[in-house]
Amino acid sequence: MKKHNFCAGPSILPKEVIIQAAESVLDINGSGFSLLEISHRSKDFIAIMEEARSLVLDLTKLNSQDYSVLFLQGGASTQFLMIAYNLFSKRAAYLDTGVWSNKAIKEAKLFGDIKVVATSKDSNYNHIPDYKIPDDYDYFHCTSNNTIYGTQINNFKDSKIPLICDMSSDIFSRELDFSKFDLIYAGAQKNLGPAGATLVIVKNNILGKVSREIPSMMDYKVHINKSSIYNTPPVFSIYGSLLNMKWLKNNGGIKNLEEMNTKKASLLYSEIDINPLFKGHAKEKDRSKMNVTFNLVNNDFKEIFDSMISNAGVVGINGHRSIGGYRASMYNALPIESVKVLVEVMSELENRI
Amino acid sequence: MKKHNFCAGPSILPKEVIIQAAESVLDINGSGFSLLEISHRSKDFIAIMEEARSLVLDLTKLNSQDYSVLFLQGGASTQFLMIAYNLFSKRAAYLDTGVWSNKAIKEAKLFGDIKVVATSKDSNYNHIPDYKIPDDYDYFHCTSNNTIYGTQINNFKDSKIPLICDMSSDIFSRELDFSKFDLIYAGAQKNLGPAGATLVIVKNNILGKVSREIPSMMDYKVHINKSSIYNTPPVFSIYGSLLNMKWLKNNGGIKNLEEMNTKKASLLYSEIDINPLFKGHAKEKDRSKMNVTFNLVNNDFKEIFDSMISNAGVVGINGHRSIGGYRASMYNALPIESVKVLVEVMSELENRI
Repeated sequence: MKKHNFCAGPSILPKEVIIQAAESVLDINGSGFSLLEISHRSKDFIAIMEEARSLVLDLTKLNSQDYSVLFLQGGASTQFLMIAYNLFSKRAAYLDTGVWSNKAIKEAKLFGDIKVVATSKDSNYNHIPDYKIPDDYDYFHCTSNNTIYGTQINNFKDSKIPLICDMSSDIFSRELDFSKFDLIYAGAQKNLGPAGATLVIVKNNILGKVSREIPSMMDYKVHINKSSIYNTPPVFSIYGSLLNMKWLKNNGGIKNLEEMNTKKASLLYSEIDINPLFKGHAKEKDRSKMNVTFNLVNNDFKEIFDSMISNAGVVGINGHRSIGGYRASMYNALPIESVKVLVEVMSELENRI
Repeated sequence: MKKHNFCAGPSILPKEVIIQAAESVLDINGSGFSLLEISHRSKDFIAIMEEARSLVLDLTKLNSQDYSVLFLQGGASTQFLMIAYNLFSKRAAYLDTGVWSNKAIKEAKLFGDIKVVATSKDSNYNHIPDYKIPDDYDYFHCTSNNTIYGTQINNFKDSKIPLICDMSSDIFSRELDFSKFDLIYAGAQKNLGPAGATLVIVKNNILGKVSREIPSMMDYKVHINKSSIYNTPPVFSIYGSLLNMKWLKNNGGIKNLEEMNTKKASLLYSEIDINPLFKGHAKEKDRSKMNVTFNLVNNDFKEIFDSMISNAGVVGINGHRSIGGYRASMYNALPIESVKVLVEVMSELENRI
């Protein structure tokens, strides 16, 4: 039976990326060696790293004079700390849109005064709260997409202070003016590649302004000066990310993927809106195209719906424990056919009842 | 032509581990999904993580009441920092045996007073200096094997203070009384598995004694409390490490691998000692069985030797830039046949000249 992978992350990757990644484990570039057993300072790997870094600039339309691209380790959770280490001087401003924002805030608070400019906590983060970016803080931090609640920032405001964005769950899913941002980061395991690498895109001129001594592994400048190979990088995850970015580029780029993502989201949200058995969690204006969160209106149908889903080969749509219900994650690699299968099951449930 | 991989790391892995790792990228456990696209909270991955953690205890003969096993990210370079974050109160003692020790010392110095109990810097780290472990420091840190110089600590002293050891380049290469140590760490990419994971084995009772607030990702206790899945772990690298530990166990365990490593090292050191064209870098008493460093006595023969090596399919034996010459890294997975090929080339050079 064909399976439909709606996992929230690590999540679905394009079939051809998976095949190429498997091939690289057996032999990279016809070298006679596995990708896993070549030096990270070898010609083969340096070419991989450089192509991956330049493809990021290509996809984001950013230039290499102003921005540096890094592939680091430790996930967004480590970035929560690195951001503060590198950029926090006196006080910083954060937007609270859920669990991940909160974790970012928690780590930054170890450094001093954090202002939460707005929060939607009281409504279980079912929308992006109105907010203003202040002028007199070291930086402003936001989370572009909130996997757990299914909300997404659809318009980014201009900012006079460095604009930092956690794009872990929607990087490369839509066209944006990436030059608005001063630092973008993303754990690879949703829209980018295999778990284990963290993409960081940082505007060079925001660095070097804090007075503290920064530990080497926490220091963006250390990694920049070593072309993202200060220490042994997560070789396989970076190569997988490169393959995935190539796939993205060869499939019409971000523009085309965004169109597909919009179609997929419309299909599922339409069903949620017309089917009386279901209700969406996120407010319409802030609905995420990556993670669609919804509930059964009547939980008595849970058992039958879960069994129908399972029979249709749909996996990974249990909601996060903090809000329950269902969450369909529809990253770039998820084919629209999978969404159609899910929508058919939802529609069939209505017919049956 | 058969190639012989003497790379210092990432380095050779057993052929069957590579094949199984490639298979897992295509399909894990017959699930219909790639290992790369399953949730790190799925049953399949939690089983992988738990088996990997318990196999580490099995191989080290440590018990799960006293010790915790973690698979983290960021390499030994991040451990240099985490150790100080978690264990440094007033002052710590370090043994300086080369570049990696120095990097560990540098990061710890951000926290305060570091005593270097001994160093062999003046002789370009060609031996392990005599040292005493003091009683009145927070902990003592040493590097078990020094890849660049080809030295290795052959006898670990008893310590009244927590004994911390960077075993990145010789973990599981020899039997040791691992219960002597309070914290052992190792980047995976030499003797353990694919780059991207860092093994940490920590004695629970040394934690919780510092008064500072520790950032979440830097806090061993946070990772222990979440069974090493506080955030998305480097899934593929952990699975590769598990496969490699299973291989190790199925091939006679550490005992058998140590015997093989001893044979391989004897073979190469014997040739270095009897062949008048070569000289070893490390003092005999501290020679490493993992990384054998040597030079040509007369550099005029470099071109011909390099070409003979290359023709024999030997790769990865250029010495580190800081000491030059040659370095043959002979981790667990390197077959003795590869060492024989290298020794034959060295011997043939003598015959030719």
